[in-house]
Amino acid sequence: MSKTKEVGGVRFAPVILAGGSGTRFWPRSRRARAKQVLSLEGERTMIQETLARLESLADPSDVWVITNGWLHDVIVEQLPQISAQHVLAEPLARNTAPACALAAFLLEREAPETVLGIFPSDHVMANTKRFAEVIEAGVKLAASGENIVVLGVKPTRAETGYGYIEQGAAADKVNGIQAHHVKRFREKPNAETAEQFLAAGNFAWNSGIFLWSAKTLTAAVREHVPEMAETLEKIAAAYGAKDFAEVFAREYPKCENISIDYAILERQSAKGESHSNIYCLPADFGWNDLGSWASLHEHLRDTDADNVMDGATTGLFAIEASGNYVYAPGKTVALLGVEGLVVVETPDALLITTRERSQDVSKIVKAVHESGREDLI
Amino acid sequence: MSKTKEVGGVRFAPVILAGGSGTRFWPRSRRARAKQVLSLEGERTMIQETLARLESLADPSDVWVITNGWLHDVIVEQLPQISAQHVLAEPLARNTAPACALAAFLLEREAPETVLGIFPSDHVMANTKRFAEVIEAGVKLAASGENIVVLGVKPTRAETGYGYIEQGAAADKVNGIQAHHVKRFREKPNAETAEQFLAAGNFAWNSGIFLWSAKTLTAAVREHVPEMAETLEKIAAAYGAKDFAEVFAREYPKCENISIDYAILERQSAKGESHSNIYCLPADFGWNDLGSWASLHEHLRDTDADNVMDGATTGLFAIEASGNYVYAPGKTVALLGVEGLVVVETPDALLITTRERSQDVSKIVKAVHESGREDLI
Repeated sequence: MSKTKEVGGVRFAPVILAGGSGTRFWPRSRRARAKQVLSLEGERTMIQETLARLESLADPSDVWVITNGWLHDVIVEQLPQISAQHVLAEPLARNTAPACALAAFLLEREAPETVLGIFPSDHVMANTKRFAEVIEAGVKLAASGENIVVLGVKPTRAETGYGYIEQGAAADKVNGIQAHHVKRFREKPNAETAEQFLAAGNFAWNSGIFLWSAKTLTAAVREHVPEMAETLEKIAAAYGAKDFAEVFAREYPKCENISIDYAILERQSAKGESHSNIYCLPADFGWNDLGSWASLHEHLRDTDADNVMDGATTGLFAIEASGNYVYAPGKTVALLGVEGLVVVETPDALLITTRERSQDVSKIVKAVHESGREDLI
Repeated sequence: MSKTKEVGGVRFAPVILAGGSGTRFWPRSRRARAKQVLSLEGERTMIQETLARLESLADPSDVWVITNGWLHDVIVEQLPQISAQHVLAEPLARNTAPACALAAFLLEREAPETVLGIFPSDHVMANTKRFAEVIEAGVKLAASGENIVVLGVKPTRAETGYGYIEQGAAADKVNGIQAHHVKRFREKPNAETAEQFLAAGNFAWNSGIFLWSAKTLTAAVREHVPEMAETLEKIAAAYGAKDFAEVFAREYPKCENISIDYAILERQSAKGESHSNIYCLPADFGWNDLGSWASLHEHLRDTDADNVMDGATTGLFAIEASGNYVYAPGKTVALLGVEGLVVVETPDALLITTRERSQDVSKIVKAVHESGREDLI
């Protein structure tokens, strides 16, 4: 951390979360080739895109990546700008709370005022310029007082697969961008509740992007999950020492397996809006979490009826066929009388499902795993 | 034709028709890799199976193959037992009448009493032993008088894709096998007529297998299609001469483009049962014409719900999926929530359709052809 780039006079350290298990985009994604390290859209891999979006905001020497043992080496290879010391592989997956908090405890020792930005590495943002503007505003807001800033996506459907942010009163604009107080974080709703959220108008999807200073996050961890705070302090104290790997491997698994939303944000927001220091900024930069083959189809298509041919197919002949997604590198694809299918071909596997069922691909991966076919995991 | 094998004292010359265009099993089948030269079931290719079934009945030196320029070389390679002189490539596809009749005119010059058997090379017969018994009876029947023998398949559904044989009174048994007089050959019926045929009980599907002596067939050709007879006589007269290829290429295209059913059998049967010399024997040896991916699925499955994995796939994981046919050599296949699909993968193409629509694969091939993608034809 010798060089630093500042955002409005504030030191900014992006923390990229890259702990995928490679199930949603199976058979393209595998444990050691999770979505983050694939180029699902465009030339660069998703984690390379994630870093590229942050280039104007932070120096690579201030970027951290929290990943797992399966992806560590390929990430170090894909992100040569980042110090390998900043790519940490969790000894055991413990969800997002320990991952986010670990970065905060590491930075707290050196520069507690530094604003941390938590960034999933497997989402797409169509408008990079707007992304930078919103993050810049978020860093500014997070740096003043002890604020927590979350980015919320305006919902377009009654989605039951995301957590929601219930927004309260409008707060001050930041760099011309309207912030809102946050009333409550809400878990993934059932269909009925999701409809209510959509109708209400003041609910946003939780994008998984958060901004807060190291000291604000560590304080929140100490308050809401004190045992986790103790554990992470031990790990942070060992960082840079000879026995770091050993301490990390021994201590980290002791952390509760819990998301940052449950561990910190819901508890913090439960104090009530008037006591809450949580703000929401609009993630209005073409966010898409690419959560399934169906959402990749949605991202790549122009209209719902479009047949999307992905992965450098060499031609398409379609007769009475619409709304299909096919990944078949180097092949010409012929579709006859089929609708809404998802077909994905890799050198060793062929997945055939529907857009509707593609969120259940993890069930296939589970069956493959249980059968002992680790070559396909 | 130095050696001969005799069936009940009769010389028997099988004529294998192998003029496929390679559309029904696209993308596995191509113009130069038509169904006949593929191993759609079992180790041997379909034309090798066809020859193997005839091994006990005829000497390879008495076997003829009528094919096209695309398939000629691969057939010569696949059937080394047969003299390359007996593998004739039509200069232009002219349907089955000229192909069948050509063999008769060739044999008439040397041994007019020889019984010719016409055998499509792209059907399967599950029971080889029974097949040989029925053919043997057919040869015997064809050799006595000027009889024409056709093999009819007992229909199991109101199929509109086949021609039908309307059977009349029972004739004498031959080697214990019940023969019937043939009343009429009937073209491919519409759905309503097909239902009537099925209900009537005396209709059989036309298997495309015919037996008659060379002199009987040439006589019928001279009677019903005299111009074709003249043309074929010229070609037969040139056989073995230096200019045969030239004569064949010049004359053969003059033949009417017509099936043996239309040109000879329907006309002969129209004379009425009392004047007809046409007999039907039962093709009760597990006949299947493998006319589409759907009928291959039907042939390979145990129950309709079975997922059939073909082409040495390396595994199957199926969740809420049934009745699918997948050809994906070397791959593990995962099916999730799909039914009745046909998916066929080759190194350069991927076909995705349904069992219901698989008889329309020729429409895809037509579109591929019209687009100029001859590499896929």
